[in-house]
Amino acid sequence: MRTVNAYAATSPTEPLVKTTIERRDVGPNDVMIDIAYAGICHSDIHTVRGEWGPIQYPQVVGHEIVGYVTEVGSEVTKHKVGDRVGVGCMVNSCGTCTYCLRGDEQYCAQGNIQTYTSVDPADGTVTQGGYSQAVVVNEDFVLRVPENLEFEKVAPLLCAGITTYSPLRHWNAGPGTQVAVVGMGGLGHMAVQIAHAMGAEVTVLSQTLSKQEDGLRLGADHYYATSDETTFAELADRFDLIINTVSARLDMGAYLSLLTVDGTMVNVGAPSEPLPVQVFSLIPSRRSFAGSAIGGIRETQEMLDFCAEHGILPETELISASYINEAYERVLSSDVRYRFVIDAATFA
Amino acid sequence: MRTVNAYAATSPTEPLVKTTIERRDVGPNDVMIDIAYAGICHSDIHTVRGEWGPIQYPQVVGHEIVGYVTEVGSEVTKHKVGDRVGVGCMVNSCGTCTYCLRGDEQYCAQGNIQTYTSVDPADGTVTQGGYSQAVVVNEDFVLRVPENLEFEKVAPLLCAGITTYSPLRHWNAGPGTQVAVVGMGGLGHMAVQIAHAMGAEVTVLSQTLSKQEDGLRLGADHYYATSDETTFAELADRFDLIINTVSARLDMGAYLSLLTVDGTMVNVGAPSEPLPVQVFSLIPSRRSFAGSAIGGIRETQEMLDFCAEHGILPETELISASYINEAYERVLSSDVRYRFVIDAATFA
Repeated sequence: MRTVNAYAATSPTEPLVKTTIERRDVGPNDVMIDIAYAGICHSDIHTVRGEWGPIQYPQVVGHEIVGYVTEVGSEVTKHKVGDRVGVGCMVNSCGTCTYCLRGDEQYCAQGNIQTYTSVDPADGTVTQGGYSQAVVVNEDFVLRVPENLEFEKVAPLLCAGITTYSPLRHWNAGPGTQVAVVGMGGLGHMAVQIAHAMGAEVTVLSQTLSKQEDGLRLGADHYYATSDETTFAELADRFDLIINTVSARLDMGAYLSLLTVDGTMVNVGAPSEPLPVQVFSLIPSRRSFAGSAIGGIRETQEMLDFCAEHGILPETELISASYINEAYERVLSSDVRYRFVIDAATFA
Repeated sequence: MRTVNAYAATSPTEPLVKTTIERRDVGPNDVMIDIAYAGICHSDIHTVRGEWGPIQYPQVVGHEIVGYVTEVGSEVTKHKVGDRVGVGCMVNSCGTCTYCLRGDEQYCAQGNIQTYTSVDPADGTVTQGGYSQAVVVNEDFVLRVPENLEFEKVAPLLCAGITTYSPLRHWNAGPGTQVAVVGMGGLGHMAVQIAHAMGAEVTVLSQTLSKQEDGLRLGADHYYATSDETTFAELADRFDLIINTVSARLDMGAYLSLLTVDGTMVNVGAPSEPLPVQVFSLIPSRRSFAGSAIGGIRETQEMLDFCAEHGILPETELISASYINEAYERVLSSDVRYRFVIDAATFA
């Protein structure tokens, strides 16, 4: 075992505090990663505050992790000491169900093992996330980070990147398709870049035009304020695909009316309350309302390679560990453009 | 013009009454059909009672129509006098939009011309439906009824048949797929037969087991009561496709939990109130909630030919015109197995 520094939540209401945690010895299929950077995802905040259900404390969160391999198990073949690697939202899965076998480990029939708050099959402990100095992960759940991606900015691709890349691929965003991105935040600003690089015509739907300049610079073709009543009339029946990154309770009828025949609105953000869906918004145009969760491991590697090829990175603000609690408040007030990344050197 | 007998609604609250209506002269592309049988669809009742919005009275409804061609326009090539033909929910569309050109006239960008309550482009009148002795329809919206289908029972295929056939085809029901049919009524008992003939494994989800014998006889492999609490636990993550024929407000979370990864629940029945959809029911298995409306003309012909090939027909109760109002009450209390068909000879 190795004792490493980390920042942990100790209750749903207290600030995160510096502590130490144990990382297991590297098993035959494991990789030890010295963490370089860890992104802050809104999910981290929901989790530590118990908003998605009760958790055990203390809990270290963080599922946007990049670092360097410092040790490999005897049977590891995919990674070697010194490699730049990443870890996202999953660290294991059953490996034998239909979904795992086809590369959709995120939909593992047994439930995938999440990077934090899951019971780790390796040692029975509760998994602890990336706000720490190091982590030990099964090699199959470790991604290669392409050399040309600026390391300090890569971490958010492991969640915000794949969460938007996967539905864009699955629902065939590309040349000739009209894609709308709802929300211009951590996920939204990735969706814009990725959809644009895939060749789609991209429209941002944001509450206001405050981030319009950024949206257009990142590849959006159009930018509309949803607070403007004329937006919904003007864009009626327009989109083949809407990626909704917003967790708030939207007027679903209004958004579904923007879909063309056979169009799909995919939620990647999850409001805790149910959304009222008027079935008459779906039937007359065979529209769909769907959800999508991160992506499989193979697809996550594909996403990293795609981002490397197209020069896609999140826009980030690098912070020290001691700033995490303040960063949380700024995430909650949407005061970040567009993702906080913790410099893991500051866990020392 | 030709004056024909019909049964019409005169207000949202009065019973339908016998009356006469005018049918336009047969234009160059028109077909005159002497109606033999007309089905009663729940939509007819919603419409005449103003439950789907205000309508003009008097109004003749009925969009499940079969009869014999008695006159054809000078340019008609698809039908000839004496042919057994059918008319469903549409009698025209723009013919030039993307959707019409690909055969999805039901999703016409201009809105299709419905068999009743639409403004007819031919003469500017409000279209009047099948509870009458004859109808004049553009040949492109007239279907051929295969000879081996018992004429008295065919009419409901034009709505109940195509409304279930189309989503089953679109979402690829077939060998190796698990299909659930929610509701064992006019639409449900067609969905069971069609899904079974397509090769899917079919499960009926009905409130009680009262129609279990019928369901199994019509081709269902399994039959479950949704009033039984154990049903939802037993069938969790089971279905690739759920065809929901029920217009009532269901517990969506419970039904969505029955879908496998990438499964779709398609509503063909439309409750007037919004359905609360918990996004967490969709995201972790990339599930979709969709709607579907009837089918295109080419697809409706394909459905009729498919039913002829597989010997599929609705189970019907033949009634006289004078029984329509009583039949409406029985439809509303689900007291019909499974569709009323009016003998149009009784309009005389």
